[in-house]
Amino acid sequence: MTNLNMDFETAFEQVKNEINRILTKCPGLVRKYTSYLTESTGKMMRARAVLACAMDRDGKVPKDAVIFAAAVETLHLATLVHDDVMDDADTRRGQVTLQKMAGKRNAVICGDYLLAAAIKELAGASQDERYKEFDFSTYVQRIALGELRQNMNNRNFRLRAYRYLTIIDGKTAALFEASYHAGALAGGATKEQIKLYRKLGRFTGIIFQLTDDCIDYENSKEVALKPVMADFENGVVTLPLIHAFSEDPSLIDRAEAGLLTKQQIFEQVIKHDGVKYTHHTAENYYKKALDAMNNIGLTQAQEKLLGGLLKKAYEGLKS
Amino acid sequence: MTNLNMDFETAFEQVKNEINRILTKCPGLVRKYTSYLTESTGKMMRARAVLACAMDRDGKVPKDAVIFAAAVETLHLATLVHDDVMDDADTRRGQVTLQKMAGKRNAVICGDYLLAAAIKELAGASQDERYKEFDFSTYVQRIALGELRQNMNNRNFRLRAYRYLTIIDGKTAALFEASYHAGALAGGATKEQIKLYRKLGRFTGIIFQLTDDCIDYENSKEVALKPVMADFENGVVTLPLIHAFSEDPSLIDRAEAGLLTKQQIFEQVIKHDGVKYTHHTAENYYKKALDAMNNIGLTQAQEKLLGGLLKKAYEGLKS
Repeated sequence: MTNLNMDFETAFEQVKNEINRILTKCPGLVRKYTSYLTESTGKMMRARAVLACAMDRDGKVPKDAVIFAAAVETLHLATLVHDDVMDDADTRRGQVTLQKMAGKRNAVICGDYLLAAAIKELAGASQDERYKEFDFSTYVQRIALGELRQNMNNRNFRLRAYRYLTIIDGKTAALFEASYHAGALAGGATKEQIKLYRKLGRFTGIIFQLTDDCIDYENSKEVALKPVMADFENGVVTLPLIHAFSEDPSLIDRAEAGLLTKQQIFEQVIKHDGVKYTHHTAENYYKKALDAMNNIGLTQAQEKLLGGLLKKAYEGLKS
Repeated sequence: MTNLNMDFETAFEQVKNEINRILTKCPGLVRKYTSYLTESTGKMMRARAVLACAMDRDGKVPKDAVIFAAAVETLHLATLVHDDVMDDADTRRGQVTLQKMAGKRNAVICGDYLLAAAIKELAGASQDERYKEFDFSTYVQRIALGELRQNMNNRNFRLRAYRYLTIIDGKTAALFEASYHAGALAGGATKEQIKLYRKLGRFTGIIFQLTDDCIDYENSKEVALKPVMADFENGVVTLPLIHAFSEDPSLIDRAEAGLLTKQQIFEQVIKHDGVKYTHHTAENYYKKALDAMNNIGLTQAQEKLLGGLLKKAYEGLKS
């Protein structure tokens, strides 16, 4: 490996700079709409994951990991922009969305531009034989498929739990898996380790989504930074609701007939322990994720970072 | 060069098969929406261009050109799907659009899926050092920028001709240039030749778009296979109209105030020779294109194919 010369924090700063560069150095027209997105990158869990997976025994991170992390976060932004178009969303995590600000037309195009920017960023990594197995476009397709499955099941109150899990495996877990995969490759992991990293990433993503699903039924608008029951309002059927419906199937007919108010749905999910059930499902994935993590042979520093991300994905459920 | 083993028609059949494979071998969910697109590929001018540019002295086309052609056409389909979302279009060239058929949400996602499929297809080409200069994602960004510029100038009746040309340089000419570029690389052209191929492609694309612009003011719905004055209805200001407005600026205020009917706009464009002016502009590009073409050192077979495409792009104006 070459360029193993940064500690984690330096690398993380570089990722932020790189994303800033992508968003603010792009042509005026796009910049006008995307520069505000630099504020939307949030905690950049996916970037942190890439860097942590790529870390060597001395805690150093290679330059390629910075590039992969910036590419993954840029792709993430692209998917958020298109998500908001699809959901007709005015705000996301308290911020006005691009589609609200610039209109649907521009948001569709800016999303395409960012998707291309992510792919372009990837091309800036060193030409390493090992990277050939990293098939970014297949991950993009998995994400798209997840979204498509979600659309197909919009307001489908008969959605089964196992089908729901295939949806979030695409729409959320695929990008996490891509992050862990890219990081592992940049760090020179073995084939066996790469498999485990990808598993860890996928499970962390699934847990992260299940946590997010519970927010609909747990918090006030202020805490959640998303409108309460936003998923339900958008017709997105998530696991807490699926569980309530499976506990009392008579609810399905009433929901389909439009006879249940938002408040009643909320109460039914609470009554049937929909959140607890979702938590339990997440717990199963958490155990599997720990299992994968413990078998990789991580350094202490890696374990702290990746374990921390996993815990963060999981603990939201208990808050 | 390896695999120089197909004549043009065989290669063209392979491109069609490859696109079919991409569209019909994709997961059921996407296939449901995209398989009908195999019928939408039309004459596949861009694919023909790739193959013609890649042709050697014996009229043979390498396998990589087939892959590039399929990638370019798949990207083209992706942009059409997103275009239709932006234009709220119900039909395109007489066919029901994906967004009409499957809804906006699904169309946004299917477009993303196809974009990823195009990039994936490219990755299937042989690993040739020369191909590294082919920056597909930058072409995607140029297309997006062209679309964005077009959106920004929606219903901008003060749009100037030279600004309009920068719009179509992105939205239409970039993908033509990409096709000629990719073909030239697959065929092993020299650096100097590649420059000329790209020019030829760009000019052919611009001419193609100018021809298309005139359809709004020339043909009946049956001939045009697109609704008459569809561009105008969508707020897309094209060169024939720009010319009429520059000939009689008083029209601008009236158009902005919504005082001009569709029929009146049509008549003003005819009165001020908007179509003739657009034709004249195309003619200038046609001469430049011929110039570039004559300097490449094409074989007779190539000249027939590429000259044929250029003529087709240009002659629509005279029909």
